[in-house]
Amino acid sequence: MTVSHHFLMAHTLAGAVFGPAQRLHGATLVVEAEFRRAKLDENGVICDFTAALELVKEVVAPFDCRNLDELPEFRGQNTTSEFLAGEIHHRLARRIREGALGPGSETSIAALKVTLRESPVAWAAYDAPIA
Amino acid sequence: MTVSHHFLMAHTLAGAVFGPAQRLHGATLVVEAEFRRAKLDENGVICDFTAALELVKEVVAPFDCRNLDELPEFRGQNTTSEFLAGEIHHRLARRIREGALGPGSETSIAALKVTLRESPVAWAAYDAPIA
Amino acid sequence: MTVSHHFLMAHTLAGAVFGPAQRLHGATLVVEAEFRRAKLDENGVICDFTAALELVKEVVAPFDCRNLDELPEFRGQNTTSEFLAGEIHHRLARRIREGALGPGSETSIAALKVTLRESPVAWAAYDAPIA
Amino acid sequence: MTVSHHFLMAHTLAGAVFGPAQRLHGATLVVEAEFRRAKLDENGVICDFTAALELVKEVVAPFDCRNLDELPEFRGQNTTSEFLAGEIHHRLARRIREGALGPGSETSIAALKVTLRESPVAWAAYDAPIA
Amino acid sequence: MTVSHHFLMAHTLAGAVFGPAQRLHGATLVVEAEFRRAKLDENGVICDFTAALELVKEVVAPFDCRNLDELPEFRGQNTTSEFLAGEIHHRLARRIREGALGPGSETSIAALKVTLRESPVAWAAYDAPIA
Amino acid sequence: MTVSHHFLMAHTLAGAVFGPAQRLHGATLVVEAEFRRAKLDENGVICDFTAALELVKEVVAPFDCRNLDELPEFRGQNTTSEFLAGEIHHRLARRIREGALGPGSETSIAALKVTLRESPVAWAAYDAPIA
Repeated sequence: MTVSHHFLMAHTLAGAVFGPAQRLHGATLVVEAEFRRAKLDENGVICDFTAALELVKEVVAPFDCRNLDELPEFRGQNTTSEFLAGEIHHRLARRIREGALGPGSETSIAALKVTLRESPVAWAAYDAPIA
Repeated sequence: MTVSHHFLMAHTLAGAVFGPAQRLHGATLVVEAEFRRAKLDENGVICDFTAALELVKEVVAPFDCRNLDELPEFRGQNTTSEFLAGEIHHRLARRIREGALGPGSETSIAALKVTLRESPVAWAAYDAPIA
Repeated sequence: MTVSHHFLMAHTLAGAVFGPAQRLHGATLVVEAEFRRAKLDENGVICDFTAALELVKEVVAPFDCRNLDELPEFRGQNTTSEFLAGEIHHRLARRIREGALGPGSETSIAALKVTLRESPVAWAAYDAPIA
Repeated sequence: MTVSHHFLMAHTLAGAVFGPAQRLHGATLVVEAEFRRAKLDENGVICDFTAALELVKEVVAPFDCRNLDELPEFRGQNTTSEFLAGEIHHRLARRIREGALGPGSETSIAALKVTLRESPVAWAAYDAPIA
Repeated sequence: MTVSHHFLMAHTLAGAVFGPAQRLHGATLVVEAEFRRAKLDENGVICDFTAALELVKEVVAPFDCRNLDELPEFRGQNTTSEFLAGEIHHRLARRIREGALGPGSETSIAALKVTLRESPVAWAAYDAPIA
Repeated sequence: MTVSHHFLMAHTLAGAVFGPAQRLHGATLVVEAEFRRAKLDENGVICDFTAALELVKEVVAPFDCRNLDELPEFRGQNTTSEFLAGEIHHRLARRIREGALGPGSETSIAALKVTLRESPVAWAAYDAPIA
């Protein structure tokens, strides 16, 4: 099951390969979080849709309307869409293992794919099991 | 190769986790059926596009403009998007094995993914081999 | 400025012209509300984006996860997408004239267009001044 | 005839109404420029598609990968999507009147609509004749 | 009310302005036909949705899977998206006036807009009353 | 990381299974090329976005505004979307192994998926490692 939300952020990208994106700029990032498990739960779902959408909103809230260059945890890190897809994956996975998607979901959600769409012609994804 | 169609249905969902969706409501469900095989056939395709689209229409027809709560086969079953993606997968797979996609396709189509889009921010998928 | 939200509803449509849609079924309706005015306000906007999105959510809330046939105000009325686009327009317009979009907006928002998308191949709109 | 391109920018928005968007952030802005005229030209087009797309790219280039707060012409101006739609309209209109869309187009293009999409749930537009 | 369908065609475009599109090539054209009228009919609709979709399919059928250069009525005519939007408008308008959308619709449908989408970055439209 | 571009082509498809598509026609093909690798590079990306988009444009350029039936390499071959997805995959893979995505990328890009969208209801994909 996939839920989608979006956030607005600014950043710079360090390295000649980024050309004009080395300058301060920003993007609308549309997040798609796909939760997977072997069998549906007793309600017939992967997990509670509302809880899943709220969790995605919770996890991206620290990035929304922010200059990512100013966040201490990203010091010296290029906050590319590829990197952010992985970072959002890690944060969602940690919260899932803590039970944020409800009783039982901490062990039953088996895998998660996070896709970040940054423009009509570019997006990035990170897909991994939730260990 | 993927073909897409859609249908309109009503249902209730039983369980406190569904909140307001416990009430009778409905959704437009956009179906995407992806057919996969190891090698293309002698025409250079996975299968006949027209036959594939017709098969998807045939399989979802019993759900279109229906209250799914009234279908005998779904008695006591929450017809969530996750469940319906699996159900449509099973029905498509059965028809493929019966040869509905043309001579030879009953053994050559190896896998099928069914995605059901229910709103701009929520969709579900079921992906499995066709045994 | 346009904001978008969506809701899920069930209904029947009375009249032979509706064919299978005479049966109880439902749809995901994506609402796009376009607010227009002659000049931008002192902040450089048509109106407060957050207030506009909240207003659309407020106005469609009575329809979300509902069987529209059961709403007293729609008794004997076909709740087609065309009708609902007009109905949502009237309700938004009334709230705008009451000042729901903030001080001054009750007289400065000049026109409103409401579009309702019901499937990938069908949508309806109602566009009128806010008298 | 409409052509579309996009750009990435950062900015702040001044005014309590903007809430968290008062902080430095950014957006992907998808531009749609619609050119209208009374009759098609001798080639059967509104104008040269390639020239139109290049003109849109030329006009938005000064904003791409930029912090709009640093552009002298926007000092003290909230660069909202509504404002930018108007600004891009004025710049495109000036270039059209200079003949940027080819011989004859400087008088034959009658109207222009610029739409700026900033997220899946918000966009702004400016529609006016080219005087 | 708008209905959408699509067709696949090939053609050449004559004139240096078209550059590589002077060569034989093709496009997927997505048609959106918007029907407008002053008041909804007694069923609460602009017109019968099924009849409208069927009418669009009927009108574009002569162009589907065709090389438009070979159609006698287009001899010496550049079949640009702008031209085709107008042509489809004229053909739909004629059929509406003949009553193709059902009793009464021949005089009650007041205006029609035809949009043709040819790529993610280019589309054309023709909007006119139905005299 | 995925980048997207599109091209316009004409062709015929040989075989009764293709019905009207046996006639000369064409399509707009939207290409999505997804590049995958085990770990991000030292800049925090899969590969240089600009280089990736330019590479996709380079690889599809020989097909753009062409009748594919006239290309010598496709003689006797049905240029279906399935076939073309594989063909574009092979051409991109060859160029990646030649280092077209920059120093080191010739060994670090591990897999590539090419999706070709031919209409709102049909698309094809080819997904394979880059050996």
